Amino acid sequence: MSLDTLLVALDLIGTFVFALSGAAEGVKHRLDLFGVLVLSFAAATAGGLMRDVLIGSIPPAALSDVRYILVAISAGLLMFLAPKIVERLRRTVLLFDAAGLALFVITGTYKALAFSLNPIAACLLGVLTGIGGGIVRDLLVREIPTVLHREIYAVAGLAGALVVVLGYYWHLPPVLVSIIAGILCFGLRLISIRRNWQLPIAKSSDSLLKK
Amino acid sequence: MSLDTLLVALDLIGTFVFALSGAAEGVKHRLDLFGVLVLSFAAATAGGLMRDVLIGSIPPAALSDVRYILVAISAGLLMFLAPKIVERLRRTVLLFDAAGLALFVITGTYKALAFSLNPIAACLLGVLTGIGGGIVRDLLVREIPTVLHREIYAVAGLAGALVVVLGYYWHLPPVLVSIIAGILCFGLRLISIRRNWQLPIAKSSDSLLKK
Amino acid sequence: MSLDTLLVALDLIGTFVFALSGAAEGVKHRLDLFGVLVLSFAAATAGGLMRDVLIGSIPPAALSDVRYILVAISAGLLMFLAPKIVERLRRTVLLFDAAGLALFVITGTYKALAFSLNPIAACLLGVLTGIGGGIVRDLLVREIPTVLHREIYAVAGLAGALVVVLGYYWHLPPVLVSIIAGILCFGLRLISIRRNWQLPIAKSSDSLLKK
Repeated sequence: MSLDTLLVALDLIGTFVFALSGAAEGVKHRLDLFGVLVLSFAAATAGGLMRDVLIGSIPPAALSDVRYILVAISAGLLMFLAPKIVERLRRTVLLFDAAGLALFVITGTYKALAFSLNPIAACLLGVLTGIGGGIVRDLLVREIPTVLHREIYAVAGLAGALVVVLGYYWHLPPVLVSIIAGILCFGLRLISIRRNWQLPIAKSSDSLLKK
Repeated sequence: MSLDTLLVALDLIGTFVFALSGAAEGVKHRLDLFGVLVLSFAAATAGGLMRDVLIGSIPPAALSDVRYILVAISAGLLMFLAPKIVERLRRTVLLFDAAGLALFVITGTYKALAFSLNPIAACLLGVLTGIGGGIVRDLLVREIPTVLHREIYAVAGLAGALVVVLGYYWHLPPVLVSIIAGILCFGLRLISIRRNWQLPIAKSSDSLLKK
Repeated sequence: MSLDTLLVALDLIGTFVFALSGAAEGVKHRLDLFGVLVLSFAAATAGGLMRDVLIGSIPPAALSDVRYILVAISAGLLMFLAPKIVERLRRTVLLFDAAGLALFVITGTYKALAFSLNPIAACLLGVLTGIGGGIVRDLLVREIPTVLHREIYAVAGLAGALVVVLGYYWHLPPVLVSIIAGILCFGLRLISIRRNWQLPIAKSSDSLLKK
């Protein structure tokens, strides 16, 4: 299996698990079948769509490659029809979700670099690819996006994106860089779930400036 | 009247009724005049804006053609100044809204096909054109988008989009295809309102996986 | 100091204060460090990002020019680490925010005109540049965007945008136009804060049409 095939395969797995997370959120909020499918599709593709729009890769991969659409919809249908089976696989889904995050961040960062974005913007776009779907998913069901207040998630993505950018500028082989970035991002995410790591929260102050 | 003139006229009527629905939502949430106009404009144009950004039709029609802006703002002002009149026309507005949905879906699907999107993506973009405005409208006033949990709305749009795509690949004349797609979408929507059809909802389960 | 240097300097100041407003909102909602930084970045750049995507200026300035990213993140860190200092400067921040609004509207309108948008669309895009960040900031923490229901904010922006468009079509020198537009927008905003001016609100009616 070539690197490209591997990346696409992993990308589709990431799409599948992110779609599952979207569908689960939709079922939880008692949306109808269409709503559940929209949440699947949004969770799985919104990050990549925003990245592609911002770097000018039009039409976005999530639309021009039918496999992304079919995978996202299949995951949504599965969750809609058999939520109990998916629930039983909860820990496995978290694993895949962490893998999906790692992969989306790596491919997102590489794609931004390939479109000549500067390294800092490439990191941001890599992280956006990884977390954008979850943000849109949560907004659609009127929740404050999980990634903004819970657990080490985006930071794991950022670590992966940084490795990709450094590797790119040091001309290291992409396969090696992807493996290191993937292990770092995936590992950080898993450890933070297990140990319940959290980012610090600022002391709230009721009278803070409101615009 | 040529087909093009007809399509543009119907598109502007769709813009008008969608803008009314946005303004009504704004009045209901006691937004100020500006807020009501923003909701009019968002409800009327967000679907088309997203479609145009995703297919690379820049600047989007809703900005480059002043008529869309003026129609949307007029509808917002009308609703703001005379909500009672509009309210009395409630059933008529629902009719126009169904017509707007049908038309936005048809023109959206055709435009996506014209920009060489694949048939499945064209269907998605057609439906997005029809429902995107309503989703943004609802998000701005902090409601879960109606289309995700109430009545047969998007499904009527999807039916219309499918007809357009099939007609396109079978090389049927666009006028004929548009009429069939329009009647199907419009009819499905009206029947589902009258009979209160709903899509199935998955059994909720409190312990479902949350990311 | 040339006009260009001045505009960029003011643009960065605007970015800084808008980022502060985003970070303040994040601290208020007890987001973690990452969430606070996302809100800083979103509040400071979302308006410009949307404008650039809609006019086809890709990649957007907020990504291709690293200074915007660094300024937004610095403001977020400052607010996160020392909210009390920022709070003490509350009135100063409101001043800067009004200045940021004025400037974002002016540069946004000019940029839209430079990309050949029609005058009405240019006004809309100028206002969007000024208020888009605040809207996304509020949506991310699940609040109805402030600009839709409180005080003269967008209207001050609209006044500034109109001046820019008129000056552009009457071929007046940009420096002069910018100064007049800036004073008008900034002044309107400050007076409306001091006198607590509000836009009218439509009489709510519970039975208004809902889609």
